[in-house]
Amino acid sequence: MKEIVNCVAYADGIRVADVNLSDVGNYLDKKNQFVWIGLYEPSEDTLDMVQAHFQLHELAVEDAHTAHQRPKLEQYGNSIFVVLRTAQMNQEHHAEFGETHFFVGDNFIVVVRHGSSIPYTEVRTRCESTPEHLRNGQGFVLYAVMDFIVDRYFPVVHELEQELEAIETKIFKEKPTRETTEKIYDLKRELLEVKRAVSPLVDICNRLMRFDIKCISEDTRPYFRDVYDHVIRINEMVDNTRELLNSAMEANFSLLSIAQSDVSKKFAGWAAIIAVPTMIAGFYGMNFKFMPELQWHYSYFVVVSVTLAICITLYYFFRKSGWL
Amino acid sequence: MKEIVNCVAYADGIRVADVNLSDVGNYLDKKNQFVWIGLYEPSEDTLDMVQAHFQLHELAVEDAHTAHQRPKLEQYGNSIFVVLRTAQMNQEHHAEFGETHFFVGDNFIVVVRHGSSIPYTEVRTRCESTPEHLRNGQGFVLYAVMDFIVDRYFPVVHELEQELEAIETKIFKEKPTRETTEKIYDLKRELLEVKRAVSPLVDICNRLMRFDIKCISEDTRPYFRDVYDHVIRINEMVDNTRELLNSAMEANFSLLSIAQSDVSKKFAGWAAIIAVPTMIAGFYGMNFKFMPELQWHYSYFVVVSVTLAICITLYYFFRKSGWL
Amino acid sequence: MKEIVNCVAYADGIRVADVNLSDVGNYLDKKNQFVWIGLYEPSEDTLDMVQAHFQLHELAVEDAHTAHQRPKLEQYGNSIFVVLRTAQMNQEHHAEFGETHFFVGDNFIVVVRHGSSIPYTEVRTRCESTPEHLRNGQGFVLYAVMDFIVDRYFPVVHELEQELEAIETKIFKEKPTRETTEKIYDLKRELLEVKRAVSPLVDICNRLMRFDIKCISEDTRPYFRDVYDHVIRINEMVDNTRELLNSAMEANFSLLSIAQSDVSKKFAGWAAIIAVPTMIAGFYGMNFKFMPELQWHYSYFVVVSVTLAICITLYYFFRKSGWL
Amino acid sequence: MKEIVNCVAYADGIRVADVNLSDVGNYLDKKNQFVWIGLYEPSEDTLDMVQAHFQLHELAVEDAHTAHQRPKLEQYGNSIFVVLRTAQMNQEHHAEFGETHFFVGDNFIVVVRHGSSIPYTEVRTRCESTPEHLRNGQGFVLYAVMDFIVDRYFPVVHELEQELEAIETKIFKEKPTRETTEKIYDLKRELLEVKRAVSPLVDICNRLMRFDIKCISEDTRPYFRDVYDHVIRINEMVDNTRELLNSAMEANFSLLSIAQSDVSKKFAGWAAIIAVPTMIAGFYGMNFKFMPELQWHYSYFVVVSVTLAICITLYYFFRKSGWL
Amino acid sequence: MKEIVNCVAYADGIRVADVNLSDVGNYLDKKNQFVWIGLYEPSEDTLDMVQAHFQLHELAVEDAHTAHQRPKLEQYGNSIFVVLRTAQMNQEHHAEFGETHFFVGDNFIVVVRHGSSIPYTEVRTRCESTPEHLRNGQGFVLYAVMDFIVDRYFPVVHELEQELEAIETKIFKEKPTRETTEKIYDLKRELLEVKRAVSPLVDICNRLMRFDIKCISEDTRPYFRDVYDHVIRINEMVDNTRELLNSAMEANFSLLSIAQSDVSKKFAGWAAIIAVPTMIAGFYGMNFKFMPELQWHYSYFVVVSVTLAICITLYYFFRKSGWL
Repeated sequence: MKEIVNCVAYADGIRVADVNLSDVGNYLDKKNQFVWIGLYEPSEDTLDMVQAHFQLHELAVEDAHTAHQRPKLEQYGNSIFVVLRTAQMNQEHHAEFGETHFFVGDNFIVVVRHGSSIPYTEVRTRCESTPEHLRNGQGFVLYAVMDFIVDRYFPVVHELEQELEAIETKIFKEKPTRETTEKIYDLKRELLEVKRAVSPLVDICNRLMRFDIKCISEDTRPYFRDVYDHVIRINEMVDNTRELLNSAMEANFSLLSIAQSDVSKKFAGWAAIIAVPTMIAGFYGMNFKFMPELQWHYSYFVVVSVTLAICITLYYFFRKSGWL
Repeated sequence: MKEIVNCVAYADGIRVADVNLSDVGNYLDKKNQFVWIGLYEPSEDTLDMVQAHFQLHELAVEDAHTAHQRPKLEQYGNSIFVVLRTAQMNQEHHAEFGETHFFVGDNFIVVVRHGSSIPYTEVRTRCESTPEHLRNGQGFVLYAVMDFIVDRYFPVVHELEQELEAIETKIFKEKPTRETTEKIYDLKRELLEVKRAVSPLVDICNRLMRFDIKCISEDTRPYFRDVYDHVIRINEMVDNTRELLNSAMEANFSLLSIAQSDVSKKFAGWAAIIAVPTMIAGFYGMNFKFMPELQWHYSYFVVVSVTLAICITLYYFFRKSGWL
Repeated sequence: MKEIVNCVAYADGIRVADVNLSDVGNYLDKKNQFVWIGLYEPSEDTLDMVQAHFQLHELAVEDAHTAHQRPKLEQYGNSIFVVLRTAQMNQEHHAEFGETHFFVGDNFIVVVRHGSSIPYTEVRTRCESTPEHLRNGQGFVLYAVMDFIVDRYFPVVHELEQELEAIETKIFKEKPTRETTEKIYDLKRELLEVKRAVSPLVDICNRLMRFDIKCISEDTRPYFRDVYDHVIRINEMVDNTRELLNSAMEANFSLLSIAQSDVSKKFAGWAAIIAVPTMIAGFYGMNFKFMPELQWHYSYFVVVSVTLAICITLYYFFRKSGWL
Repeated sequence: MKEIVNCVAYADGIRVADVNLSDVGNYLDKKNQFVWIGLYEPSEDTLDMVQAHFQLHELAVEDAHTAHQRPKLEQYGNSIFVVLRTAQMNQEHHAEFGETHFFVGDNFIVVVRHGSSIPYTEVRTRCESTPEHLRNGQGFVLYAVMDFIVDRYFPVVHELEQELEAIETKIFKEKPTRETTEKIYDLKRELLEVKRAVSPLVDICNRLMRFDIKCISEDTRPYFRDVYDHVIRINEMVDNTRELLNSAMEANFSLLSIAQSDVSKKFAGWAAIIAVPTMIAGFYGMNFKFMPELQWHYSYFVVVSVTLAICITLYYFFRKSGWL
Repeated sequence: MKEIVNCVAYADGIRVADVNLSDVGNYLDKKNQFVWIGLYEPSEDTLDMVQAHFQLHELAVEDAHTAHQRPKLEQYGNSIFVVLRTAQMNQEHHAEFGETHFFVGDNFIVVVRHGSSIPYTEVRTRCESTPEHLRNGQGFVLYAVMDFIVDRYFPVVHELEQELEAIETKIFKEKPTRETTEKIYDLKRELLEVKRAVSPLVDICNRLMRFDIKCISEDTRPYFRDVYDHVIRINEMVDNTRELLNSAMEANFSLLSIAQSDVSKKFAGWAAIIAVPTMIAGFYGMNFKFMPELQWHYSYFVVVSVTLAICITLYYFFRKSGWL
């Protein structure tokens, strides 16, 4: 995959030209015009060139170079630097995270992707198809890509919710196993990661829709409220799943305790049923010279019958009291 | 059920005319007049017509089209867009949620219902019977419907409180079972859902009664304080139930532990009572040539009596120490 | 008990006249004069008359009519409406709650009692005995009654603290029982109820002592700080008791676990002491033709002695390791 | 101990005269002069005299009369009223609390001690030895005594930390006992008490160092930051200890569970080792006429040897799998 | 290690001279010049000299003298006093903490190290190599050292994360042991310590990057945002690890409970398999005169076979139901 995915100039919301990165300067002075550059894990040279063109702050560029930032919005003079985490489910059904950084200034937006994430060509196509919106400039592009990124979280969270349901079934319908416990732990870990990726977005969207950030036109602000809304919903879904997961774990615990009790009762019941004939048999195995019963003709059959009767009685008694 | 449930114009709080949706424009200019439109899961066409008449914001209309929004209040210029969740108990005693969206502007209110919810004809009738209040315009209608929706939560929460009481009875008066644990989990899930539906209302009511929202006349604001009050109470009831449910679960846990201990003690007690005669019997089953007791005439009776005495003593001892 | 408990006019802090409710209008215009009306579960007619005299807001009067409000302070124009919950211990040592509502305006205070609560004649007497304070008007009366209500919470909370101590004794000095668990649960429930009744008072007092509420003279404000202080203390006592109760429950849990372990150990110890002679006896009960020991003269005594020695050794061994 | 411990006038930070309480009025008008009065559980008369001299607010004096206030700072016109709780370890190693109240005005500070607490003569001596500081007036005295009181909390908290360490040793190095559980509970209770005494000080110091309290000169404010710092540290130490205590309790719980499991395993292991020979012996105790082995000459020795071999094998097997 | 590690004057970001502490006064008046002094556990004399030169506040110097401060930023007139905690892993893989204090004024920065911490010569070298940054003065030096200190926390936290992973492996792949429980407790303690050292930095950085602190030039402020960012990340990592550790502990608990249940089941299964032949053997050990089976020729073999068959059946039955 090439480093510079795209570098296009727009005027009045309409694509004007595919620009070479080194010629970008020609498109920065005109009104109603802006440049949208898409980069993928750019080299230091490329970033230096971008920095030179747009006068980006050294610290922001440093951050853009390495992944593993946390989501944030930083204002440097007239331009802003935004870091977002992207998420998608991989084939082993684990959430996989990437990063996208944005430099947004008066007439440019630079989108830098890191790690596993879908390219934003789809977003670009969709934006170009609604010039009446794209006319709002780089602010609208920022919205469009953020919206795209945030929407990608819904399938991830839905899959985590389904994992919770699978765990619920395991706990309430099947037997508690070590695997269930490990799955609960893994789900918790994944929820934490999604939470960490999404929750800083609440603050970021808030600032984008409330405060006076010059490079974002006023008409674009309500759109960030839309992103904000989605972020809040994802956050809520994650919190919900976490809370239910905790309850599920406690339920699991109660059920383990009941299961343990059931084992004890079953064992106690059968132990009693076996212990009684053993005791009786032992009794008539004593070697006393004078044990009158031993001499009687039917005593063996009587003893066997009585013992059997006791065992059967015990069995029904335990059955009734729920021990067996 | 038809899409456009109602479309009525009011002047000075009195019903003026049933209007056709396409003629609504004629009723929007006059002072002290407003239009109240009731829709049920409207088609895209209908919504587009409504949007055109009242100049609603594209994003709000998009939201109104699909259910599964979270409760919120959004201001677009002079009009506001409100999303509420409605609740009712279905026949399987589970809370069932619907959604109602409101567009409120200078001289109109559009109420859009989604999913299972009672129609608001009752509210309309009640409003029309008090023209002195309805004169306050679309703000009062918003209040009336919100009040109606929020009041519907009380029976739902009462039923959840009764479920908690049923669980308490199960835990403290009867035996702990797997079903109790599952019921606790289900109740938790339902409480979470109600909480999620109601808690954003605190903030919504706060904004309606405090901030300067033009399309709501000042005289109407204290009424939203009333709704606010109900919302706070429902919230408190839910929180209370949740906290008690947690305590009930912990109590359940303690009782399970005590029950387990009781099983162990009972088992240990009976095991001892059976083990002693078994041991004694085994003893006199030994085949030593010289065991003087075996030859004595009454030793069998003596041994049986002594064994019996020991068993009875053990029984009373265990009884007294609470093991049996 | 009659509906209108009292209706008295005061001037410069001195009781002027017992007024008939319908003549109250005559006493509302003069300066330094105010009317203090005490009602008990008033009928709709009475409340309507009061509303007419003092121009109370419809919503407040509606609230005053039914009990089961949560504590709150609402401002309607120049007058305020306050709802408090009163508490007292009944004879079964359970907290019992009532409600008192206040309408306070420029020259009147209406006190409406609901449910079980002591009448405020005592407060009236005390107020009348300090005209230099009562001169401050209806604000001081509000303080005096609130102070009286809040002070009633102290004995309630003290009794709950004593219940906690009783539970502590049960847990640490006696045996854990099902009753202890149920008592813990009940105490939690009562603490929650007290908390719910008292905690909104923090905010109410705060507003009474900080904000500009006209019908309360400035000199009276420091007095509400006093009430605030008591409320904070009750709140703290409740929180404290709750936290200790939680710790007590956890301690109970640990002790249950230790007790369970003790049962297991005791059982295991005695099982071993009985199992060994049973095994030995079984051994010499074998019917092999050639078992030389069986023929020896003293072998029986030797075996008995050795067995006994083993049992005694085991007993001391288990004793020492704390299993018996 | 006498009621009026001290009553001294200072000018420019230097002790001027020991004053009789009734003559205090003579020292209140001059600039750069202030009076520092120390009282111990004063009678109503004394407090009345103090109140008259310094025009203290009735409610503050009422509070100063009885102990059992919670720490607070209240402003009455130009003077402030401060309540602090003092702490020290008594000989049974339990935290013991006293109270000290302060009235601070334009040219006076009255320090009222209640309950067990060291007198502040040491503080007075130290203050008098640095007139350059004492020149700052009553504000500096307030700081000096507060600092002294707060510093007394450190040894208390250190002792509680040592108790935690003792509990840790008990849990991880020795056996879990009922005493440990009770000690954990007691430590929790003491930590709660210290927390309650110290945490309101954060707010008090904050107000003393930030807000415009006239009777405290500006130069003195940074000193309260110092007290603030100590309070924060004590708070942190208490929170830390509480959190570790909770973890210790959970660890205790896990270890109890492991111990319980160990008992079960040990029991199961030995039960198996005893059950096998018992079963074999029982077998050869059967009275069938035709059991060829019984007649063979060495079968007894063979059976004994085989049984022994089985037992030894079992023993090593259980040993290896950690059951014995 | 000597007390005064370094004392250098800089002009326009370039090293001008190594200064003797007593001559420092000569370098304090010129513009664009500042002095950077590095001390290591300085004696009281040295600190007094420093205090005299830079007019430091008495309370700050007192603090700088003793270690065991908590991280804080205090403003005294034009200069600030900052306390940070440094961390590094020692050879026993335990986090070890030191302290560094800073006095920053208009043209000086004094860095005082306490306890185990790497010297800041590396930072000095790096700063001197970028005079364009060092030109920003003492504020930049403060940033550089803080950044260095904060970066040192990453390896510490990484090691703690690895310990968590080791614990996870122990819990899910191996057997639960007392050592695991103790390790969990120790890790919790270390996380708490790191948290305590790092979390006050959020507030410190916030103030350094937001508020108007004169001795820090405006250009330097964005740099503190960078430190802030790192601090937030470390905080998040610690919180994350703590939360996962809690979940791991709960998982451990569930697994202990399952393990305990497994022991019970295994024991119950084998007990049954042994108890049945014991009972049968006991039965045919009875001494009744008339037990026809005893006389039959093959009955012994039949009984043995039947018993064996029962045992094998039981074994497979238990195997199938997961008890063995």
